[in-house]
Amino acid sequence: MTLSIEQQADIEAARAQSTATRRATVPALENMLYEAVPVLDHGFVRVIDYMGDDAAIVQAARVSYGKGTRHVTEDAGLIRYLMRHRHSTPFEMCEIKYHIKLPIFVARQWIRHRTANVNEYSARYSVMDREFYIPAPEHLAAQSVSNRQGRGDVLQGEEAATVLRLLREDAETCHTHYLAMLNENGTDPERQGLARELARMNLTLNTYTQWYWKTDLHNLLHFLSLRADPHAQYEIRVYADAMIRSVEAWVPLAMAAFREYRLGAFTFSAAMLAVLRRRLNGEAVRQENSGLSRREWLDMEAALSAQEGA
Amino acid sequence: MTLSIEQQADIEAARAQSTATRRATVPALENMLYEAVPVLDHGFVRVIDYMGDDAAIVQAARVSYGKGTRHVTEDAGLIRYLMRHRHSTPFEMCEIKYHIKLPIFVARQWIRHRTANVNEYSARYSVMDREFYIPAPEHLAAQSVSNRQGRGDVLQGEEAATVLRLLREDAETCHTHYLAMLNENGTDPERQGLARELARMNLTLNTYTQWYWKTDLHNLLHFLSLRADPHAQYEIRVYADAMIRSVEAWVPLAMAAFREYRLGAFTFSAAMLAVLRRRLNGEAVRQENSGLSRREWLDMEAALSAQEGA
Amino acid sequence: MTLSIEQQADIEAARAQSTATRRATVPALENMLYEAVPVLDHGFVRVIDYMGDDAAIVQAARVSYGKGTRHVTEDAGLIRYLMRHRHSTPFEMCEIKYHIKLPIFVARQWIRHRTANVNEYSARYSVMDREFYIPAPEHLAAQSVSNRQGRGDVLQGEEAATVLRLLREDAETCHTHYLAMLNENGTDPERQGLARELARMNLTLNTYTQWYWKTDLHNLLHFLSLRADPHAQYEIRVYADAMIRSVEAWVPLAMAAFREYRLGAFTFSAAMLAVLRRRLNGEAVRQENSGLSRREWLDMEAALSAQEGA
Amino acid sequence: MTLSIEQQADIEAARAQSTATRRATVPALENMLYEAVPVLDHGFVRVIDYMGDDAAIVQAARVSYGKGTRHVTEDAGLIRYLMRHRHSTPFEMCEIKYHIKLPIFVARQWIRHRTANVNEYSARYSVMDREFYIPAPEHLAAQSVSNRQGRGDVLQGEEAATVLRLLREDAETCHTHYLAMLNENGTDPERQGLARELARMNLTLNTYTQWYWKTDLHNLLHFLSLRADPHAQYEIRVYADAMIRSVEAWVPLAMAAFREYRLGAFTFSAAMLAVLRRRLNGEAVRQENSGLSRREWLDMEAALSAQEGA
Repeated sequence: MTLSIEQQADIEAARAQSTATRRATVPALENMLYEAVPVLDHGFVRVIDYMGDDAAIVQAARVSYGKGTRHVTEDAGLIRYLMRHRHSTPFEMCEIKYHIKLPIFVARQWIRHRTANVNEYSARYSVMDREFYIPAPEHLAAQSVSNRQGRGDVLQGEEAATVLRLLREDAETCHTHYLAMLNENGTDPERQGLARELARMNLTLNTYTQWYWKTDLHNLLHFLSLRADPHAQYEIRVYADAMIRSVEAWVPLAMAAFREYRLGAFTFSAAMLAVLRRRLNGEAVRQENSGLSRREWLDMEAALSAQEGA
Repeated sequence: MTLSIEQQADIEAARAQSTATRRATVPALENMLYEAVPVLDHGFVRVIDYMGDDAAIVQAARVSYGKGTRHVTEDAGLIRYLMRHRHSTPFEMCEIKYHIKLPIFVARQWIRHRTANVNEYSARYSVMDREFYIPAPEHLAAQSVSNRQGRGDVLQGEEAATVLRLLREDAETCHTHYLAMLNENGTDPERQGLARELARMNLTLNTYTQWYWKTDLHNLLHFLSLRADPHAQYEIRVYADAMIRSVEAWVPLAMAAFREYRLGAFTFSAAMLAVLRRRLNGEAVRQENSGLSRREWLDMEAALSAQEGA
Repeated sequence: MTLSIEQQADIEAARAQSTATRRATVPALENMLYEAVPVLDHGFVRVIDYMGDDAAIVQAARVSYGKGTRHVTEDAGLIRYLMRHRHSTPFEMCEIKYHIKLPIFVARQWIRHRTANVNEYSARYSVMDREFYIPAPEHLAAQSVSNRQGRGDVLQGEEAATVLRLLREDAETCHTHYLAMLNENGTDPERQGLARELARMNLTLNTYTQWYWKTDLHNLLHFLSLRADPHAQYEIRVYADAMIRSVEAWVPLAMAAFREYRLGAFTFSAAMLAVLRRRLNGEAVRQENSGLSRREWLDMEAALSAQEGA
Repeated sequence: MTLSIEQQADIEAARAQSTATRRATVPALENMLYEAVPVLDHGFVRVIDYMGDDAAIVQAARVSYGKGTRHVTEDAGLIRYLMRHRHSTPFEMCEIKYHIKLPIFVARQWIRHRTANVNEYSARYSVMDREFYIPAPEHLAAQSVSNRQGRGDVLQGEEAATVLRLLREDAETCHTHYLAMLNENGTDPERQGLARELARMNLTLNTYTQWYWKTDLHNLLHFLSLRADPHAQYEIRVYADAMIRSVEAWVPLAMAAFREYRLGAFTFSAAMLAVLRRRLNGEAVRQENSGLSRREWLDMEAALSAQEGA
């Protein structure tokens, strides 16, 4: 992660301010506020603002005049109940705003979640920085043979070296030519400079962009359940992981319920339930006579053999 | 507006709290926080929470690391620019949460705005209070003769008295029977009591309900532009008016731009623009040779003759 | 269900038309088109229009130039895969439009699903018909003792008779007074008549309204998974059931996958998975030492003992 | 535009089919169905499916049992009324689905419209074609000097030639290396091949992608009002223009109202209205004493001097 001295000073100044408020505040999240948590080689996640806390979920569920309930255990129980029964609207009453720096190909996947508010750095208006995502060697995965959408082993030796070199050289060349076409500040007085909105098309998809991204807790948890999942691409999962830590600090009761009823849960299909019933009746079911596809079978086995709390 | 002693105490307690925060705060809005502003005979609007301020709009538009710009005049100029060119995403970066008490028939109109987060008091789960909206005599409007959707003169004398009596009696009778069907607390030990989710259907549409309603500034302004409009039904307009006062306290620069480019603006259709051009060329255009319908003509005339700042 | 002769004729005329189209058509759904399927005592569900079919889901998932795949079994497999892995966007490529007549208190619950397009009959503009929902005796449920939100036994004898009488009388009285206040057609030449937008507040919540409701298949299935659920209120569940029959005719492959992976599925929480593992290891777990609440335990037991295909 | 023989055949096959339907059909749009309309050098717009017509807007506004009104002039009048008063929900009752091929940097701008349903060709799953957008010489615009977001003159001579060469070479080099890293079909048997989800990051932003994009008429018109605007970037405007022609064929009455009240209209701010009033009173207002900024003044002047129908 590379922050300029000026950016660092802006962050420090924001963190130094303190004012009195009547609103609900969460000290553990205040602690993190504005700080840039590094992700990938040049990216970060920063919490910029938030609204509400665990009690606000309870308060909304009850449409109450004051706080939530009197006791934390009651709040926890109600929040677990809401999560389990998918009463999602009370979770929508909490809101959080992030500043995120991320490679464009990750941003393209991320933006498909349509329920958030987004302001992205504009390459029509401004010049893009010379920063690209180059995977660490241990994340340079081969194409999976079994799964068209997945990753296989990590590339080794010369192949890895070649890939890394190409990624770096092409990104740098494209950015160098991008700047040359722009001719910003009239470096070459003979030329006018290509419009920024056109020149940007010469950049590669691992170029970093950044945005403000704001969403409510319900939609954030939905995003995290999809993007912190082992099937998600590594390069977006690390962002989800960093965000989970901020949610943990912000709404610990909601996060615990989320772990219990989403992240740590598993949905058995109708056919899987039938297999379960046969097994609990003592039958030794095998995939071949289970009615499940091989992949369904493996997923079910994984859920049943996982260590608790894993 | 009727708040119980316990509700009043909850509000006082919420207002008494004060904690330190690193977040942007707006003293003028903090001043109003939690207080119930009376609307209609038993309704109210309360600001429960908020996120962001005028500077947050600027900050998002620039995707900056620190605050907005250095100078208020720059912020004002940028906010005006964003409003004028309908760059709506920076306004989505501010969020506000209200607690609102309102008649069911108003709630039904209100809920059509789909972009907000809502938690309504549940009549499946709880018993509805005995509170109904009965219009003040000066708002007891007759059906408009010219406009199927509008209001005409105010009803007078015996007709007004009869209407008010019927509204009150029917609402009270229905609520009395609602309670009787429920048989809460086993008042009549011989009876089981009808399910709440069924009994509620006996209530009239002027019964008060309440909800938590949370939205971002862009969608709030859109709501206000439709519902603070003279064509909106009086009973929802008074809510919009009360909310405008809270927006004024919260984001004064955005509100000023909203007045300039939305509330105080007027859109000329292609045909109206043609009329304008003829007029500015000195021609005395009349409705008959304007190409405009009578209603379009009257709307345009009203916009052109309005007192500035009205 | 009560359709006027004119309405019936409009429906017949719509059904009689036939034109050629290059679009995907679904004969089984064409068969049902425009017909009013009765729901409750005066309500109905009518399919008005639709876009897409099972092949359109496959086509969108592949972003293909032609149809889906060559073989139905391939299409079925892909659709099952998409449903299982919650790849929801291909299901959004099918759209359906209903005309629905329903009691207002059901409409208020229904409208909370914000992703649909809705046009409701306007009581500001038009006069509401004299039609109310009065439950059939076998659906006149008592309040549940164990569950604040649920139904218990069916009311019997005199209590049932009284409830039915009150519901009917209050609805009729309120509607009679509604008409009187309106004074439509100047029945009483001495009076002006109350504005429609005000008079409507005198109606009871079991009055029937109607709307056009349009949504995509993904959001429709989400709606159905919540509203066809046994925990949903009976009066909305019957609408969901009627709609499921139209979805069955429309996209049979998607519907089969929906039954397998949603309606017939069950999600085990982290704690439930731990119990399952102990059981499959031969341990006889009881609720007391399960770590589950009583209600969670009962839900899990129900899922494990249900007859396959139930 | 480059379609493979197989793609062309798929399109022909789709166009050749014809089935009977009871649904509303629009012959003028049926005529265009499935055909690829070329946009930019390799892109296209194809209408894949649609639901509804002008009459469906009227039908929804009236929540009617049959068609719209009896007479086209009545339908036109109602549609104009709805458009003028921003009653947007009836326009949401029509739906259209496009297949679009477009450069990634255009797709990134386009996707910001969150109300549509989208399925994009997946570069995690499939290999991207070797097709890039290279501007025609007459669209190779210089950066505007006056407007940071805009375009100035067209580049000439050697500068233009260099820019075109760099754009082409960099895109080709990046794609060549992309294929090499993938090592699809084991061209080099010594190598495993990089995962597709990683290799794609080496592509430039002018690489073509494609998607299915489905939206309702209201949101489509909103999209078109922003993207067919002269301030929009040329490379997205040409797509909007192509789509306008399909909307024209589909819902001619709605399109005419859209031209009258949106495309051909102009919104006067409060300060502009004040200037208008002074002018109509005979005063010769200049920008200096108008209270308007220079840019506002120019925009207003342009609206007032435009040729009717332009």
